[in-house]
Amino acid sequence: MAGSTYGEVFKITTFGESHGISVGVIVDGVTPGVELDPAYIQKQMDRRKPGQSSVTTPRKEYDTINIVSGIFEGKTTGTPMCIILQNTDMRPEAYSDIQNAFRPGHADFTYLEKYGIRDHRGSGRASGRETAGRVAAGAVARKLLERRGVSIVAYTKMLGGIECETFDESVIEENPVRACDPVAAERMIGKIHELAAAGDSCGGIVECRIRGVKPGLGEPVFDKLDAELAKAMLSIGAVKGIEFGAGFAAAGMNGSEHNDEMDASGYRTNNAGGIIGGISNGAEIIFRIAVKPTSSISRPQQTMNIFGQEQTIETHGRHDPSICPRIVPVVEAMACLVLEDMYKRQAALHD
Amino acid sequence: MAGSTYGEVFKITTFGESHGISVGVIVDGVTPGVELDPAYIQKQMDRRKPGQSSVTTPRKEYDTINIVSGIFEGKTTGTPMCIILQNTDMRPEAYSDIQNAFRPGHADFTYLEKYGIRDHRGSGRASGRETAGRVAAGAVARKLLERRGVSIVAYTKMLGGIECETFDESVIEENPVRACDPVAAERMIGKIHELAAAGDSCGGIVECRIRGVKPGLGEPVFDKLDAELAKAMLSIGAVKGIEFGAGFAAAGMNGSEHNDEMDASGYRTNNAGGIIGGISNGAEIIFRIAVKPTSSISRPQQTMNIFGQEQTIETHGRHDPSICPRIVPVVEAMACLVLEDMYKRQAALHD
Amino acid sequence: MAGSTYGEVFKITTFGESHGISVGVIVDGVTPGVELDPAYIQKQMDRRKPGQSSVTTPRKEYDTINIVSGIFEGKTTGTPMCIILQNTDMRPEAYSDIQNAFRPGHADFTYLEKYGIRDHRGSGRASGRETAGRVAAGAVARKLLERRGVSIVAYTKMLGGIECETFDESVIEENPVRACDPVAAERMIGKIHELAAAGDSCGGIVECRIRGVKPGLGEPVFDKLDAELAKAMLSIGAVKGIEFGAGFAAAGMNGSEHNDEMDASGYRTNNAGGIIGGISNGAEIIFRIAVKPTSSISRPQQTMNIFGQEQTIETHGRHDPSICPRIVPVVEAMACLVLEDMYKRQAALHD
Amino acid sequence: MAGSTYGEVFKITTFGESHGISVGVIVDGVTPGVELDPAYIQKQMDRRKPGQSSVTTPRKEYDTINIVSGIFEGKTTGTPMCIILQNTDMRPEAYSDIQNAFRPGHADFTYLEKYGIRDHRGSGRASGRETAGRVAAGAVARKLLERRGVSIVAYTKMLGGIECETFDESVIEENPVRACDPVAAERMIGKIHELAAAGDSCGGIVECRIRGVKPGLGEPVFDKLDAELAKAMLSIGAVKGIEFGAGFAAAGMNGSEHNDEMDASGYRTNNAGGIIGGISNGAEIIFRIAVKPTSSISRPQQTMNIFGQEQTIETHGRHDPSICPRIVPVVEAMACLVLEDMYKRQAALHD
Repeated sequence: MAGSTYGEVFKITTFGESHGISVGVIVDGVTPGVELDPAYIQKQMDRRKPGQSSVTTPRKEYDTINIVSGIFEGKTTGTPMCIILQNTDMRPEAYSDIQNAFRPGHADFTYLEKYGIRDHRGSGRASGRETAGRVAAGAVARKLLERRGVSIVAYTKMLGGIECETFDESVIEENPVRACDPVAAERMIGKIHELAAAGDSCGGIVECRIRGVKPGLGEPVFDKLDAELAKAMLSIGAVKGIEFGAGFAAAGMNGSEHNDEMDASGYRTNNAGGIIGGISNGAEIIFRIAVKPTSSISRPQQTMNIFGQEQTIETHGRHDPSICPRIVPVVEAMACLVLEDMYKRQAALHD
Repeated sequence: MAGSTYGEVFKITTFGESHGISVGVIVDGVTPGVELDPAYIQKQMDRRKPGQSSVTTPRKEYDTINIVSGIFEGKTTGTPMCIILQNTDMRPEAYSDIQNAFRPGHADFTYLEKYGIRDHRGSGRASGRETAGRVAAGAVARKLLERRGVSIVAYTKMLGGIECETFDESVIEENPVRACDPVAAERMIGKIHELAAAGDSCGGIVECRIRGVKPGLGEPVFDKLDAELAKAMLSIGAVKGIEFGAGFAAAGMNGSEHNDEMDASGYRTNNAGGIIGGISNGAEIIFRIAVKPTSSISRPQQTMNIFGQEQTIETHGRHDPSICPRIVPVVEAMACLVLEDMYKRQAALHD
Repeated sequence: MAGSTYGEVFKITTFGESHGISVGVIVDGVTPGVELDPAYIQKQMDRRKPGQSSVTTPRKEYDTINIVSGIFEGKTTGTPMCIILQNTDMRPEAYSDIQNAFRPGHADFTYLEKYGIRDHRGSGRASGRETAGRVAAGAVARKLLERRGVSIVAYTKMLGGIECETFDESVIEENPVRACDPVAAERMIGKIHELAAAGDSCGGIVECRIRGVKPGLGEPVFDKLDAELAKAMLSIGAVKGIEFGAGFAAAGMNGSEHNDEMDASGYRTNNAGGIIGGISNGAEIIFRIAVKPTSSISRPQQTMNIFGQEQTIETHGRHDPSICPRIVPVVEAMACLVLEDMYKRQAALHD
Repeated sequence: MAGSTYGEVFKITTFGESHGISVGVIVDGVTPGVELDPAYIQKQMDRRKPGQSSVTTPRKEYDTINIVSGIFEGKTTGTPMCIILQNTDMRPEAYSDIQNAFRPGHADFTYLEKYGIRDHRGSGRASGRETAGRVAAGAVARKLLERRGVSIVAYTKMLGGIECETFDESVIEENPVRACDPVAAERMIGKIHELAAAGDSCGGIVECRIRGVKPGLGEPVFDKLDAELAKAMLSIGAVKGIEFGAGFAAAGMNGSEHNDEMDASGYRTNNAGGIIGGISNGAEIIFRIAVKPTSSISRPQQTMNIFGQEQTIETHGRHDPSICPRIVPVVEAMACLVLEDMYKRQAALHD
């Protein structure tokens, strides 16, 4: 497979399946000598873990990190950090009744086609569980970025058709859907309960803002900063699109509207979303991702099984009616990984 | 810099600036023994070259390919192909009056911040001219994909606010805006002439369809097929967003609407855009990209110069009022590169 | 650091320090659907583990593998295999008396210079313990190579000045020094006991033969088969040199002596060591590596400490008087990794 | 093929065959803003070019560099440098009489096996001509290393059985065999003329010394500094072995002899060759490579042709009786590439 590694200089490799013994990550290329409290990483894990609230899956994974290497006397050593998370609430038998069917929206069919192997115990590597390792690695990168004055925040911008109309960063972690508008948050929670009752799910839009990035980051030609962020975000299971700054709206603008003019204090507007020519321009980096509705729903659906026969299935597992609230820390983690790698690449260029 | 290489197994490296002697590409990892007529590559170059019609820049680059290596007696040898394109219509002096100003929308400021070097002769590596090498390399990949039964077509879906309402593949290369709807094409051409007269520009949406891809391509976790396509597309200068299948609309759907059900003949719908869990599912792969308006406009704009002073500039170069028609072959080329690499990676996995 | 990954298509990443909780490896890019018994991997681990005989360190590491992912129902899944080995016999306190000194021959000084971190608990990543993960990964590659008809065998060719004069493959695993000549083996054992009594150590030469490799493997220009093998072997801690075929003796030959002539049945001689122009030629691949004497000796040695002061140290740890017997399985493992990667790259090229 | 790229952060990609239109290289990741005179690069090219003296091939390649990109107003821009060298003295017809035979010692058979393509026009990518691009790229790296106070010198240590007995750096470029001992140099020249008259060739040993490298360079585990140097050197066509410091002699030493003791001023000896645990220790880095005799000799040799028939061939081309004098600048170039990449990687780690 060999697609389990991300990064050029600051590199992570994840392993583990949703229903195996454990999942985890190796983080290589960590700046040595940086104080790193395991609780700092654990905090990010707790934001991603299931069972946080009434709007997420009741699957219980305590997601307590086990740092196997790369830390000595409270500081990074510069050698690879391996962080392991036990899978404590595996229930492979929950899947046995649908073990031969391809669940709509899931990667069952495509994994079988790719590997020629049928693993019916949940989604394997395609499971959101794989992102636990990313969040752990992202926390390491976040710590390194803090020293650079970079901060990253993501939040639910839209969920189930309900848009945030205000932006208040202080409320994001105060509501279970991680919306940036407390009024919209209440409506989103209602929507989720309604969908859960109906055995359905919904999608949404997650927005991410990155501040404090110095101008000049990103590598032309292929490894543009936005290209790398796009890859990183689309590598998250449920993401179906991304746009930077004005994004798809830019497609409908004229140049005289879209171009960000400058004055002596910098850019007057930010249609570019903080990136021009693939390189950070010092303005806030802002992008949005389209999150598809959770594939697992309990309504009956038509599908095919591995014998080529049509069948109807109902998936009564433990699922999130919308993945947006839990995808937020994953988006932040991936953004951290991209940026730390780019900072280090810029340092290499100028050395 | 070291961001000039793309691909894991089928690898390309581009070089050259817009106003230097030449641009070009090295293609490494080409299947040996495949018949490859230079005219096949030239045909793709001609689709990208400037001066094709009244809607593109009058800059003349004949873009005649010079294959320096990797072909012997009409067949690929498996050794690196180097393809060089002379820059025949350089006019660096055209830029001398704005040589100290940061042109809005251009990468002038960000390149200076990245490299600490001011090259006032046009956009250097950030220029669309760099994509000539990609199109040449993409043509090599396209030839290899033909053997696999894969076909790729991109076209202008929206331009200047005008949407295509029909899809007729046969008309795409028959109209200068490369729209899939001949009626919309006429209106788009009118729009471009109108904008050119007003010294303005416009953005648009380009859609790409890939057919004949076998199920099972794409590498979980980070190198998902859609993640790689997203990176490849966002690596094209003017692209500000991408969406697959239902894309951003999926964010507003319920799971019961969005999930693609299956029957014995395959998927009934294609909201996924041909990719599930990062792996091709055998359905048509379909995505759209948001193209920003051309940054170069001849209207006066406020900006800063390299001395930190505010100034007004007007850019009277030779520019495309909308880049959509010429970005189409670049989109196809990048898609070809991604797919050929993924086919080869799949072959390596199963060997 | 980011130097913990090896391979292009078949990729491994190791983690862990000698005196941490555990060491291990992630193997990515494994052919799916291949039967793989954990005992097959364990067998290789047992060949590398300490405490096997009177000639190796008495440090006890049972080195029982824990396969965390990538295997389902006895077969590889194609997803990353993570294999973990607990460190069961850590004694960091054993190092406390020399915690500020740079041990001669060890990487204490260079690690401090590289990372700015002093970890006095043994050799960290520079320890031979890190190779446990490589041997586990190498066993996976060996299983894949078996399907291709490739076999790999390494053995002690010289130890402490005692040369093997015969080659009998069947005796290698029957003597504790893994020599290919049972008479020389006896003398080597005597030499080791003598050195152990004197608190000294010795070096040696390990030879490796690879059979059944098809002609055509290896990538010109930089990734030649011998170049990759050289990197892989020099990446093993104590290795100071490598030579292929006639090797350094070739430097003293004339072309008329060295050139391997061919007849209708193939090469008549094998001065090339099975590789010409960086590509396998179908003959046996044969190379030798120079192994330096174990750095840890109990004789007093002059050195410097981290405060820049001179001091005398004696290292009374648990060490191998010669590392040759235990480096043999590591050499084989690295050779397996190189070859499996090259086979897969060749498959990708021709797909 | 995809083996034409070397380096992680400072990256080069070569292209071109010996009997094609041109050969060349792309250098990516160059520090921007560094003054770089083309004559500086040309000087290195002139050291490698054929026809320099009576001891090298009379093939005439003026090897005048053409820098296509990456330099502006005498300074590096940080964008990829493409350097092209025309092949001015191609004589493919010279090979037509042996076009179906596998020349002993050459890569004819292995290339055919690898690619399934027979290109009878000389050695293609396996030709020493490919190294012209490496030398050009190496000169760029050398310029960057000069700023760091690093100097690299290689020279012929042994040729045709004649050993240098003194080391005088000032004489190396003053004698055509690039020996470090002027007396031995005279004898080597005599030997070459004698072999040339006899239609034979000889091998030799080239030694390289690198000074001024700061301690701490090199990446454990797989990308050790010596491992990377070994790969880089073995990637040069005729090299069959490498050893660092005491090298193969270390295999015969005891630990008490081999360990380099330290005092307050550093290492007292340099058996390690300047690298311990894969990381530079601040001492001179010293290694030797075994160079095989030139494969092309004019004596009759037995071989096979592409039809599987035995035949006798005589190769009357234009060849170097010993490649040592011309391999010297290639060895230096590769060493420069490895070191510059490692410096940049170290900068990235600590950023």
